[in-house]
Amino acid sequence: MKITILGGAGFLGQKIAATLMADPRVETLTLFDLAQPRPPATPTAATCQIVTLAGDIAALPDAAIPEGTDLIFHLAAVVSAAAEADYELGRRVNLRGTDAVIDAARRLSKPPRLVFTSSVASFSGGQTALLPDDARQLPANSYGTQKAAAELMLADATRRGFLDAVTIRLPTIIIRPGRPNKAASSFVSSILREPLLGLPTELPVPDDFAVWVASPRTAVKWLLHAAFMPSAWLGADRGINPPGLSVTVAQMLAALEAVRPGARQLVTRKHDKAIADIVGGWPASFTAERARKHGFAPHETLQELVEAFIADDLEVTRRERLQG
Amino acid sequence: MKITILGGAGFLGQKIAATLMADPRVETLTLFDLAQPRPPATPTAATCQIVTLAGDIAALPDAAIPEGTDLIFHLAAVVSAAAEADYELGRRVNLRGTDAVIDAARRLSKPPRLVFTSSVASFSGGQTALLPDDARQLPANSYGTQKAAAELMLADATRRGFLDAVTIRLPTIIIRPGRPNKAASSFVSSILREPLLGLPTELPVPDDFAVWVASPRTAVKWLLHAAFMPSAWLGADRGINPPGLSVTVAQMLAALEAVRPGARQLVTRKHDKAIADIVGGWPASFTAERARKHGFAPHETLQELVEAFIADDLEVTRRERLQG
Repeated sequence: MKITILGGAGFLGQKIAATLMADPRVETLTLFDLAQPRPPATPTAATCQIVTLAGDIAALPDAAIPEGTDLIFHLAAVVSAAAEADYELGRRVNLRGTDAVIDAARRLSKPPRLVFTSSVASFSGGQTALLPDDARQLPANSYGTQKAAAELMLADATRRGFLDAVTIRLPTIIIRPGRPNKAASSFVSSILREPLLGLPTELPVPDDFAVWVASPRTAVKWLLHAAFMPSAWLGADRGINPPGLSVTVAQMLAALEAVRPGARQLVTRKHDKAIADIVGGWPASFTAERARKHGFAPHETLQELVEAFIADDLEVTRRERLQG
Repeated sequence: MKITILGGAGFLGQKIAATLMADPRVETLTLFDLAQPRPPATPTAATCQIVTLAGDIAALPDAAIPEGTDLIFHLAAVVSAAAEADYELGRRVNLRGTDAVIDAARRLSKPPRLVFTSSVASFSGGQTALLPDDARQLPANSYGTQKAAAELMLADATRRGFLDAVTIRLPTIIIRPGRPNKAASSFVSSILREPLLGLPTELPVPDDFAVWVASPRTAVKWLLHAAFMPSAWLGADRGINPPGLSVTVAQMLAALEAVRPGARQLVTRKHDKAIADIVGGWPASFTAERARKHGFAPHETLQELVEAFIADDLEVTRRERLQG
């Protein structure tokens, strides 16, 4: 198989690449990103050919999706805070970029499977929401708008036979490695990651604040399932709300405490109305019925999620933050 | 007031222009279209300045939306059959065109009201559907996809303060002047217009086929209401399903017969599976609760609709068809 990962330098792109490099079915793996991606470090040498490319997704080079490509992961995006700060950049990457991917797929002699990452940010509804699979997408930010519009374009491209799209609307991914950033959702990872690093952090919302989350391990499982499952059952509706976890801050802190007793003392409550207002609009739960019925992995427990971060990402995060 | 009509050469654009030319509040009326629009013929001379411009909406000239523009009607579109036949053209006009309008509005010192025409083609649901105001848009064609995506972009542009958008999702407009065309919906006008011209026509669907329609007169009323009403009540949801009529073919033919006895004999039943399959997917009814509550004119009866076509458009249609 020939596979391309757009956004191949990113957090999820690297984890998917590492998995695919160990898959004997893969012949060529192309990693494309704004900056030249590095192939992920893996325990054993890859048996497939690995191509890395840098460029602008809205002016996608032909080599990023070469003839014979069977599968595309389209993970490249300008994320929420950045798309809000720079309207043109968000529109260019998130929407024009998706159109460029559609045009590249059309040129292939056989329509490829395309796995697209959309987001819960494409919905609204707030703390009391329990959204069904056919919930309307009424985004409250430019990132969610551009994702919802890109979903529409990919569904139409599928109907026309240009490609075979499966869109996974990812929950807030925790625990993200790296540092706290300016995203409104940054605290959802920080209140677990920072204490695990022995560092203090602030909680800007009440303890009963609920959020729809997924772990990197499970998100990668979902994206790989979306890549290799039959897709005819999707019909005209190419969007999947995967079975994330609806958890409260209190439950997250309890899981932290269970794994690392005393760690929750590093979390200080400091209400931030601006953050609370933004994240308060996000839907806190989804039924995810179609996904559960069609083989998308159920989510592990919060405690397992914290343990998996310690196993997979804690030491790399510590080293990278010490270095830079 | 400075007003621009994008798509000013079109059927609805010309009717809106004619109304605005008689409005003493209007100082400048700019008509923009692919081909240079002609100002509509009106009983009395216009008191406002009229500017006509030709161009590509995706490369919108600054003069189309000059500084000080208070109100934009964005009616320019590649319609359903054409957008299906030419993917790039539909995407360019219907989506890039809308982005160009957003960018032009951003340059103004005061955000203008923007009235956008979307379509029932942005929904699916079929004959049994009764869609609520918050129904999900899951289009089954490229035109509806591009309209739904443009709606998302305009809602976000409104949230950001670039403009103040009101989207009207127009029903199938009957009775269209002119000739039958290749649109799947062409028959909905033809079964009334052709017999009124004394010409035979074919009915490709069963008599109990239901369709959501609106007259040109009422559509123009809605668009003008959308232009001048307060908009704060819309909140984040800038889309309006206006109060059209859900009518069956049998009801349409009965109205025709009431207005012009014997005319229905010119309609021959000839089932066309291809057409029936396409139009069978369109939603046949909407609750239109928000619109009814907020002053959008209720629809006249079918018989009044037929009589209005005779009064407004029949002779012009006859003359134009005789001439070419």
